Amino acid sequence: MEEVKVTPEALMRFCTVCFEKLGLSVPDAQVTAENLVFANLRGVDSHGVIRLKVYVDRLRAGGFKPKAKPRVIADGVAAMNLAIAKAQAAGSGWVSVRNSNHFGAAAFYALRAVSRGMIGLAATNAGPTMAPAGGREARLGNNAFAVAIPTGQPPPLVLDMAAGAVAWGKIFVAQQQKKKIPATWALDKNGLPTDDPDAAAQGGFIQPLGGYKGYGLSLLLDVLTGVLSGGGFATGVRTLYQDLGNPSQVAHACGALRVDAFMPYSDFCRRMEEMTDLMHSCPTSGRERIYVPGEIEHQTEQKRKVEGIPINETLCAELTKLAAELAVTAPF
Amino acid sequence: MEEVKVTPEALMRFCTVCFEKLGLSVPDAQVTAENLVFANLRGVDSHGVIRLKVYVDRLRAGGFKPKAKPRVIADGVAAMNLAIAKAQAAGSGWVSVRNSNHFGAAAFYALRAVSRGMIGLAATNAGPTMAPAGGREARLGNNAFAVAIPTGQPPPLVLDMAAGAVAWGKIFVAQQQKKKIPATWALDKNGLPTDDPDAAAQGGFIQPLGGYKGYGLSLLLDVLTGVLSGGGFATGVRTLYQDLGNPSQVAHACGALRVDAFMPYSDFCRRMEEMTDLMHSCPTSGRERIYVPGEIEHQTEQKRKVEGIPINETLCAELTKLAAELAVTAPF
Repeated sequence: MEEVKVTPEALMRFCTVCFEKLGLSVPDAQVTAENLVFANLRGVDSHGVIRLKVYVDRLRAGGFKPKAKPRVIADGVAAMNLAIAKAQAAGSGWVSVRNSNHFGAAAFYALRAVSRGMIGLAATNAGPTMAPAGGREARLGNNAFAVAIPTGQPPPLVLDMAAGAVAWGKIFVAQQQKKKIPATWALDKNGLPTDDPDAAAQGGFIQPLGGYKGYGLSLLLDVLTGVLSGGGFATGVRTLYQDLGNPSQVAHACGALRVDAFMPYSDFCRRMEEMTDLMHSCPTSGRERIYVPGEIEHQTEQKRKVEGIPINETLCAELTKLAAELAVTAPF
Repeated sequence: MEEVKVTPEALMRFCTVCFEKLGLSVPDAQVTAENLVFANLRGVDSHGVIRLKVYVDRLRAGGFKPKAKPRVIADGVAAMNLAIAKAQAAGSGWVSVRNSNHFGAAAFYALRAVSRGMIGLAATNAGPTMAPAGGREARLGNNAFAVAIPTGQPPPLVLDMAAGAVAWGKIFVAQQQKKKIPATWALDKNGLPTDDPDAAAQGGFIQPLGGYKGYGLSLLLDVLTGVLSGGGFATGVRTLYQDLGNPSQVAHACGALRVDAFMPYSDFCRRMEEMTDLMHSCPTSGRERIYVPGEIEHQTEQKRKVEGIPINETLCAELTKLAAELAVTAPF
């Protein structure tokens, strides 16, 4: 079997039915499916249906509680909606979530504020995979945040980034290709920078973005999510693929800022257009063009809406197997 | 003349009198002096009295308006106080400032929230010195932010960082020492990474922290400060040392989040202590110990309060000359 292309609708239907089979309510199954397909559409395949299997495994093992309210992805959406309602009333709103499981793509939540004329922020902690600057033990997650900013017309500006120098995925790819990695990406198990992806993968760690700055950023995100919510933080959080039968104790934060509390919305959009133009018109060095954050994802989304979402052979086999197990029709 | 050590009180008095001579009101002169000495006390000498001369030059040239309200540093303080008052009422508060001049150390503002049991955030844009990822023209500032988090007992956790890989100061030091710089620090005038500090200094740029992530972070900070405030943004901002007779059009943002809107303050402090302990107890790789953000600055502050603030020979001469020009007694 080679790579196949699946329409977002078919993939959405498949994921929704899988989640329903495992006991989620229809709206919760839908929003969780939507989060995964959202990531695939935008080309962030690391957060797409590649995660369906572990979500299913967690639901089967009891780590996700399908009958709890709120749950899986729906808790983040509820928190974001609450932050938006608070900002509607007060200009700004901030909500934290504890005892969650997995966030998926942070931009999914942040973007919900944009259609209401607000700047949205969504942050999450994650299971420990990063050492504090100077350390050699995982004490912090590759914690992440997204901010979505309205621009009046698509695409909105969306910054969605983690505090690590790089995602594990890139190190795994280098391992497969037997290539060296930049010395700023990972540490070996002794906490020393390494250009060997095997040394990184075998008990090593992701380096924080730019060293002490990324360490500070990751710690800050953990305070705003885990510490402030009363949920798990630092080593109190489990990674998605660990200990499937128990909740991950992941915590989130959602914030919203109403633009028209500061200036007329149309003025803000005009200024954002000016800002975007200033970036686009910058002379380049060896690249075709300059992008603003979220633009490439938006272009991929437009393309994949028409052409479908590519699913590689391995993932296709995994999803086909899952479909058989759950007695659900596979989308291919 | 060699390095001298000056008490913070003497330095504070000197700066205050200089600002008064140039027309600032007593409270405004004091808060501006306080901002500079704050930075020196914490070891952030790049933001300390090394900037007195350019502040004075701007006041003399008309770029700072001494009789305007608010002004120089006082505007940021007023905005932070307003954000704190809003958070007192609503749980969170967010205030933006336009037509400002210079922020000084961002932590100075963020820390004001801590004594009220709040998390404080202060952000600023700056004159363009950074190219967007892939570009070769300065379109964004090395924009910066600070977040201060209460811990119940000193020191609070303080992350104060810019979106650039490094401060220009470090590149100048490498120039003086005729040493190469890491290829991730700067671009030459053609937008290509360089390890030659001279190539960086001669029309080159600071690289964003970790490439596209730092670019996104810098752009985000400019939106939250410059775009949202209605002030200058991107190339509309002047650097501190440019065009002294005109306002810099710098913009800021101040935010505050009341901890006890989320959980009892004492619980939060206990959790912050646990978080700090988890970082401190992490096994190290070749370093003596692990620090949390703001800890080194706090230690320096304790030390310099006792031993005085070191002022090097060049700066000493500059301040002595300034003292003579303004008919103020020098603090040495």
